[in-house]
Amino acid sequence: MTVTIIGLGLIGGSMALDLRNSGFCDTVIGVDSNKGHEKSALALNLVNKILPLEEAVRNCDLVIVAVPVDATVLVLAEVMKFVDKQVVTDVGSTKELIVNSLAMNKNRGRFVAAHPIWGTEKSGPTAALPGGFNNRLTVICNKEESDPDALSLVEKMYKNIGMNIIYMDALKHDIHAAYISHISHITSFALALTVLEKEKEIESIFQLAGAGFESTVRLAKSNPDTWMPIFSQNKENLLEVIDEHILQLQNMKNLLESGDYEAFHTLMKKANQIGKVLESR
Amino acid sequence: MTVTIIGLGLIGGSMALDLRNSGFCDTVIGVDSNKGHEKSALALNLVNKILPLEEAVRNCDLVIVAVPVDATVLVLAEVMKFVDKQVVTDVGSTKELIVNSLAMNKNRGRFVAAHPIWGTEKSGPTAALPGGFNNRLTVICNKEESDPDALSLVEKMYKNIGMNIIYMDALKHDIHAAYISHISHITSFALALTVLEKEKEIESIFQLAGAGFESTVRLAKSNPDTWMPIFSQNKENLLEVIDEHILQLQNMKNLLESGDYEAFHTLMKKANQIGKVLESR
Repeated sequence: MTVTIIGLGLIGGSMALDLRNSGFCDTVIGVDSNKGHEKSALALNLVNKILPLEEAVRNCDLVIVAVPVDATVLVLAEVMKFVDKQVVTDVGSTKELIVNSLAMNKNRGRFVAAHPIWGTEKSGPTAALPGGFNNRLTVICNKEESDPDALSLVEKMYKNIGMNIIYMDALKHDIHAAYISHISHITSFALALTVLEKEKEIESIFQLAGAGFESTVRLAKSNPDTWMPIFSQNKENLLEVIDEHILQLQNMKNLLESGDYEAFHTLMKKANQIGKVLESR
Repeated sequence: MTVTIIGLGLIGGSMALDLRNSGFCDTVIGVDSNKGHEKSALALNLVNKILPLEEAVRNCDLVIVAVPVDATVLVLAEVMKFVDKQVVTDVGSTKELIVNSLAMNKNRGRFVAAHPIWGTEKSGPTAALPGGFNNRLTVICNKEESDPDALSLVEKMYKNIGMNIIYMDALKHDIHAAYISHISHITSFALALTVLEKEKEIESIFQLAGAGFESTVRLAKSNPDTWMPIFSQNKENLLEVIDEHILQLQNMKNLLESGDYEAFHTLMKKANQIGKVLESR
């Protein structure tokens, strides 16, 4: 089995490692618009060889597109031109626009829309690491639009690298993702900006930062080139969540300001439920 | 050396463990208004014995007050009645109101105001664990108001459990704490509420939650009995930070809404600096 991975960053690079380690394939062909990343992926032994896109697609069994979600739409359109029996999948954090972009494509059946839920705040080939996907969840969207053999191969691939699979409509996926992933990034970026802004006034403000602060701002280290297209593709859902989040903050602020500590305490008790909810998954 | 710890929760219990493990003292006397916590602390061998407050204070060299910050003010006033040569310290996350409450106390010199910066989202004696304070920072406030021997003993104690010490004015401490600790808790509580609210509408929303979401909502599991008094005592500083944070969120929202992705990208790049700033500490 030969797999072509287009986009040799954190996700593409880590998949390259796991797919060969798990024995799912013997050869990984790498493609990246960034020549430095291609060189680096070869040097790090993430991929066996680098080929131009057309040749890479024509000479493999499975194509994984692991580029930022705005580029995914363009790359998929290009890849589909060279596909006959190959299977094509993506790893994008948004799904509706990507699925829609291929709705009329004659090779739509060869494509399986997927979102493996794993990542770190790092990026590029040097961020790739083995075993990250193990025991995590991958979402396959609109599976009925994929050919049965294409779907099977992608399912097999994710099982090989230890992932659990759930199936979801692309529209529903994007709403869920706005609530349990995209808003976390927004709040983390906003929190980092709030504190960096203050740093200009107060020297050494970060000296006192403990593990709690680090955990809430960790996602603010994430790559804007990855996240800007995710936010823009999921704009409508995300705007709704940001509005709701601002309302919650304003409510807490008003209760604190007016000294209604009993109501504030009740809100915190309610928020505590998040622990049980996450454990019960 | 005998140490009395009043408040046998996460912080008091963990200090009890580390103080004996490090050899700083041979006996820890425990006091807690919650009889269940006293029993549990004895059973877990966090403390050697339980005594009533007056007796505990009279029969020790050092008193550590490790109760929620609203109770700290009351407990300190009580403790000070029984003090002659003993040293008294607290571990509160706010410092100005606590320091002010003792400004006129005849035993003010015996008191050392401190804030060891460590904790988890858990609480109670069962949350106590050894080694947590190691390599972390403790802030000692208004040290010039403490007797030199009292200050020395508290410094020695913190060094014994592996902490680094910095000195700060109580007022300045509270402003810093609002920015790099208290606001993180507020945003985490608000984020949990935002998503729990949505959960009523969408089934199984948490299935897709990854490590990023968990890291941003971890602090929402924190104990309201600990945090409500912290927020109320640091109300003025915290309200200012919440306002600034809401402004940052509204700014990001407006840029997303109007499609100004270039400016949004620039903001994220700026937020990325938090990584370097935290590393350079």
